[in-house]
Amino acid sequence: MTTLELLQRARAARGAMALAGTDTKNAALTAMAGALERRADAILAANALDLEAARGTISDVMLDRLALSGERIAGMARGVREVAALPDPVGEILSRAERPNGLAIERTAVPMGVIAIIYESRPNVTSDAAALALKAGSACVLRCGKEAHRSAAAIVEALKEGLTAAGLPADALGLVEDTTRASANELMTANGYVDLLIPRGGAGLIRACVEQATVPVIETGTGICHIYVDRDADQDMALDILENAKCSRPSVCNAAEVCLIHRDIAGEFLPRLKQRLTDDRAAAGKPPVELRLDSGAAEVIDGVPAGERDFDTEFLDYVMGVRLVDGVEDAMAHIAAHSTGHSESVVTENEETARKFLRGVDSAAVYWNASTRFTDGGEFGLGCEMGISTQRLHARGPMGLRELCTYKYVIRGNGQIR
Amino acid sequence: MTTLELLQRARAARGAMALAGTDTKNAALTAMAGALERRADAILAANALDLEAARGTISDVMLDRLALSGERIAGMARGVREVAALPDPVGEILSRAERPNGLAIERTAVPMGVIAIIYESRPNVTSDAAALALKAGSACVLRCGKEAHRSAAAIVEALKEGLTAAGLPADALGLVEDTTRASANELMTANGYVDLLIPRGGAGLIRACVEQATVPVIETGTGICHIYVDRDADQDMALDILENAKCSRPSVCNAAEVCLIHRDIAGEFLPRLKQRLTDDRAAAGKPPVELRLDSGAAEVIDGVPAGERDFDTEFLDYVMGVRLVDGVEDAMAHIAAHSTGHSESVVTENEETARKFLRGVDSAAVYWNASTRFTDGGEFGLGCEMGISTQRLHARGPMGLRELCTYKYVIRGNGQIR
Repeated sequence: MTTLELLQRARAARGAMALAGTDTKNAALTAMAGALERRADAILAANALDLEAARGTISDVMLDRLALSGERIAGMARGVREVAALPDPVGEILSRAERPNGLAIERTAVPMGVIAIIYESRPNVTSDAAALALKAGSACVLRCGKEAHRSAAAIVEALKEGLTAAGLPADALGLVEDTTRASANELMTANGYVDLLIPRGGAGLIRACVEQATVPVIETGTGICHIYVDRDADQDMALDILENAKCSRPSVCNAAEVCLIHRDIAGEFLPRLKQRLTDDRAAAGKPPVELRLDSGAAEVIDGVPAGERDFDTEFLDYVMGVRLVDGVEDAMAHIAAHSTGHSESVVTENEETARKFLRGVDSAAVYWNASTRFTDGGEFGLGCEMGISTQRLHARGPMGLRELCTYKYVIRGNGQIR
Repeated sequence: MTTLELLQRARAARGAMALAGTDTKNAALTAMAGALERRADAILAANALDLEAARGTISDVMLDRLALSGERIAGMARGVREVAALPDPVGEILSRAERPNGLAIERTAVPMGVIAIIYESRPNVTSDAAALALKAGSACVLRCGKEAHRSAAAIVEALKEGLTAAGLPADALGLVEDTTRASANELMTANGYVDLLIPRGGAGLIRACVEQATVPVIETGTGICHIYVDRDADQDMALDILENAKCSRPSVCNAAEVCLIHRDIAGEFLPRLKQRLTDDRAAAGKPPVELRLDSGAAEVIDGVPAGERDFDTEFLDYVMGVRLVDGVEDAMAHIAAHSTGHSESVVTENEETARKFLRGVDSAAVYWNASTRFTDGGEFGLGCEMGISTQRLHARGPMGLRELCTYKYVIRGNGQIR
């Protein structure tokens, strides 16, 4: 099927999705989860072919992202069931007003229409993204990277079975067959077919969407997250937060990439930081963090001198930029100049300093005395998420079901004219 | 000053705007209103030059939009004072959650940053748009059509006086000097400088922004609005609503352009419609409406046969397309195929029919037994408005102060790690 045909079918199916009741959508999601489990062998077989083809052409980290297992498929099914359990955002009355002339005006959440998602080599995104888009009452068009295409096709087949079982049109979910750049470009310019395009992947993909798309886009994911350790920090807390934010899962967007340290405590704190993130970890058999030091920090401890781009790079690895600053204002100025607007944290016992940072830092999530790793739909209580928006329009931070909807005004009158 | 310099200055001023308190912003707005009134003579003199240059090159309707008067300037000042009186959207806690791990998460409204507005020949948009953007805590960059440039420059000078009087940076408001297409293109691609671009004007301008902009855009304004007169309509009410929606101000986007009529009542209703919109108005010395009839309607009354494009045209004039339909589903199908997603109304006494229409029609505002002319920030109780969004992302329908803001998550912890 051509991409255009797929889009036409999704467009035609969106009316049925928009009018589907909560019970019907939940029945479909439950059936989708069951079908994933039932078809696990077929999905694993498709995944084995993907892995075989990819081996040697992509990094080990990427291969790990691509690999499925019985456990991972069970996790995908669990994710779909979790979406079924979330409240239905569609039809919620967001606000209501009765005007002096008697008009009753309701602002009501309604589905987006057709949501397209371009992603790369994580097959589990297939079911996560589809479940969220469908529960939000939209039709869903997926376009995955060529490495994961066989896996994604097997997953989509299972999910369509669930849609059909609940009496919803299988066309409400589609996987683009063409995995060349042409199909991505086609989605980016499919005005009249795609109501919202969400790129989930690396910085290159997201930049391409922002620059080339003529359909509405929500940017997700790139996170150059900062942790500022203030002069008045509880240093033990700062070390815990830094190790967690950097090391608990370095490949994700809410991992910290840069540590800013108040110059007045550098002499005391930097050796402790090096000990904690490098020496202690190496001794415990954990991957040590490579610290890339600005000139000030390099006067205090040994480490790799930071290169020109090291404060503008999402390492997604056991690497961290370290820079000394003159105080909270200087930290905020560095963040304003280098952050991607994802998540930043201040560690301080000084309430005034914290207030300044929380008010003045312009990122999707700003933290006081906590790890940036909490920027996540589940951790925020939104349930599952479609990604973390780093743009300002429509949705910022974790995007849950409500962020995948739009609204309309419904006005009831009895002959009012103006 | 070049457009880039203007943008750089706006960018530098946005921090001061974002941190400005409500009282400071309101003091600035009040001073802006006073300066408009005090400088009325200078503004009228600039406007006279604009009018002189434009005469003969643009239509009378456009000349009327361009023309200012003492009364219109007083209206502009009143508009700015009304914005001062509106609640400040910045800092509002939109939602709050305390998580089981003790994290306190607040979703807080924050300014957009730099809002750019491209408009055409209405000088009053200058003060309306600036007041809203500034009250919403953003810096504001304006780019008006060349016909209105002298008027806009005089208005901006007055408004800057108000900013300065309240201790806010005059650079928070800028008028692009270049009125060629180049400056519009520059704003559309000013990534890193413009956080939101709002085109206010004709369909051509809006299409250009949607197709060419790489910065976030909110489409406004194009309204091909429909009124469906059902078999079960109160026909007197339908006539009142139709005359109001078509004739009370035909040049605005919430005016109705198309009337859909249930086939079963065409024989009775069409002659009454013709009488009311054409003959009665002519007899009363009011501009009669030219009805453009589909083949079904043309069998019942005399009128101009509808051309191929007449059901896809925003006439903005005393012209209305008339088409017979087989019922509410047929009306909804026509609307889905031809509407711009602005405002549509059903006139019926049948609750079931109304419910179907309100649920199934996918436009920013859907009405039951009321005129489409109510789609307006003031009428909806939002106060003044920046325009009517016809897109689905971020804001839909009238955009008030809240729709000009974004939000961020502010999270307070005591050392939480994940």
